[in-house]
Amino acid sequence: MVTSRFLKACRREPVDATPVWFMRQAGRYMAEYRALRERHSLLEICRTPDLATEVTLQPIRRVEVDAAILFSDLLLPLEPMGLPFDFVKGEGPQLERPIDRPADVDRLRDVEPREALAHVLDAIALIQRELAGRVPLIGFAGAPFTLASYAIEGGHSSNFARTKAFMYGHPDGWHRLCERLAAVVADYLAAQIEAGIDAVQLFDSWVGVLGPADYREFALPHTRRIFETIGRRVPTIHFGTGTAAILHELREAGGDVIGVDWRIPIDVAWERIGFDRAVQGNLDPTLLLGPTPRMFSQADDILSRVGGRPGHIFNLGHGILPSTPVEHVQMLAQYVHSASRRMR
Amino acid sequence: MVTSRFLKACRREPVDATPVWFMRQAGRYMAEYRALRERHSLLEICRTPDLATEVTLQPIRRVEVDAAILFSDLLLPLEPMGLPFDFVKGEGPQLERPIDRPADVDRLRDVEPREALAHVLDAIALIQRELAGRVPLIGFAGAPFTLASYAIEGGHSSNFARTKAFMYGHPDGWHRLCERLAAVVADYLAAQIEAGIDAVQLFDSWVGVLGPADYREFALPHTRRIFETIGRRVPTIHFGTGTAAILHELREAGGDVIGVDWRIPIDVAWERIGFDRAVQGNLDPTLLLGPTPRMFSQADDILSRVGGRPGHIFNLGHGILPSTPVEHVQMLAQYVHSASRRMR
Repeated sequence: MVTSRFLKACRREPVDATPVWFMRQAGRYMAEYRALRERHSLLEICRTPDLATEVTLQPIRRVEVDAAILFSDLLLPLEPMGLPFDFVKGEGPQLERPIDRPADVDRLRDVEPREALAHVLDAIALIQRELAGRVPLIGFAGAPFTLASYAIEGGHSSNFARTKAFMYGHPDGWHRLCERLAAVVADYLAAQIEAGIDAVQLFDSWVGVLGPADYREFALPHTRRIFETIGRRVPTIHFGTGTAAILHELREAGGDVIGVDWRIPIDVAWERIGFDRAVQGNLDPTLLLGPTPRMFSQADDILSRVGGRPGHIFNLGHGILPSTPVEHVQMLAQYVHSASRRMR
Repeated sequence: MVTSRFLKACRREPVDATPVWFMRQAGRYMAEYRALRERHSLLEICRTPDLATEVTLQPIRRVEVDAAILFSDLLLPLEPMGLPFDFVKGEGPQLERPIDRPADVDRLRDVEPREALAHVLDAIALIQRELAGRVPLIGFAGAPFTLASYAIEGGHSSNFARTKAFMYGHPDGWHRLCERLAAVVADYLAAQIEAGIDAVQLFDSWVGVLGPADYREFALPHTRRIFETIGRRVPTIHFGTGTAAILHELREAGGDVIGVDWRIPIDVAWERIGFDRAVQGNLDPTLLLGPTPRMFSQADDILSRVGGRPGHIFNLGHGILPSTPVEHVQMLAQYVHSASRRMR
């Protein structure tokens, strides 16, 4: 495992070929996942270690990826905190009672992730046993801003108006909420590390709706606290979308690796982040729908922009889309390996 | 009108105070608009010159803005092209038969905007008569990428997967579609200019989902053609959201003024755009929900970043949200005028 390409790249060490994994590499684009979903809900899979293990391993058997990522959901910590939710078909997550005013924050419950989310930790142990060192296992959690946005909006949002109105209108309540979330997430990730994961990714998927000054005021301190708590126990990846104007701030908040989306060329992004961090990205997931020549040429473009500099992990700019043909995912992983080997 | 602050700022000439107008300054946040909407649908208002005139003028009577903007909808040109749509309560526009394959593009009809959209041109004449030179009138249309995304997705989208799959999968069909849209839009804007508007804004609201290389390949040539067709007859504003990484490309496509959203500080944006263009923006619309001290301090921040350089039009980074108190909009416009006067 110490020789894992993925872990080496996180530490910016030279590798034989560019490591690759995909956000949502386990999911609806795979027939075996869809088959399992016919019998079990998303939350059932997340909460049943055997099922979470099976789904985590599905892409490892089919796709030449250099890392597994725990199958789970960003929102899991919200329920034990007192924010129950469910997944409504076609609409994504829906919270029963979103946070509406600062007093709602004070009603949140303290959570001991080792108890409330023990099933995730059990899944990690089970997955590691099954993986037997073939590839490292990535654990993950949501960053405070992104979790707070779900807690306040009650689900997906297009403009994050409720989130920002709360943030601007009740800065104290906002910071209390994010402190609570940061404490739970830090604890949850520490528990994941103890349970045996090899790296963590913090998803601040929607933080790109903030400009640099707002990011610094409302998101950075809470995200930084999580990275500080994790320390240097395992490599950390810090990911968001639409972050072209706040890459420097994301880096300041923490993360050995900064994940970037397709909106900015990876070399431009890396320069803004600083070459003392690794980068992960950044193919547009839509390119995997086909046709494959364009997918390959864009993968080439990313690899040549990186130019063999140590510290690049190939990934998409966001998750694999459900309608993606599995063959394209397989071909892309192989291609990244062979093309990056040729470039060395 | 030649002395209009707004038109002077478009030409980067010095002004006595920073001109201000707001995207969606006519709309649901105003009680008089909501009253009208109880009796008329959005499309009825757009298609009835008297009603469009009334709604266009509503904010002029209440808010100290330096320009009126024609009340209309980006999608109007789609119906005569053979893409009928309606507004579904709470869900936004919904096309009856979105474009699904390249053959659908060839079935689109040629449109003579002077006939098919004559009601818009009638509204312009009526509005100008009512305005009687008090403030200039801005006309507008959607840019090819943004219109194509509605034509293909059939409505709002969160990831634009269908749009991009079409673009990557059928580049010829995509370019044919955008050529058709660009021709109609160029003609439509020319007709608006003939009908008497004083400036135009081209809305490429969703083009920020493209990186620079994709923007250059799939959007820029079509947008440029529109700006070239308009020429220098009236000042042109080119607006998009999430464009931090493609500002230079937007500028290259055209526009005397580049509109930017709140995700990037306006001075950083202006430097990337180049000081030989004017800029418009960029307060986060959520700040208008309150509390007002933060709204004012952010307005100050924008004005001090601009530092009195000629060629800044104050606006939001996107449209006014429906739940915005009208008093905040009034106070903000006054504040921009008085604060920018003090700074001079």
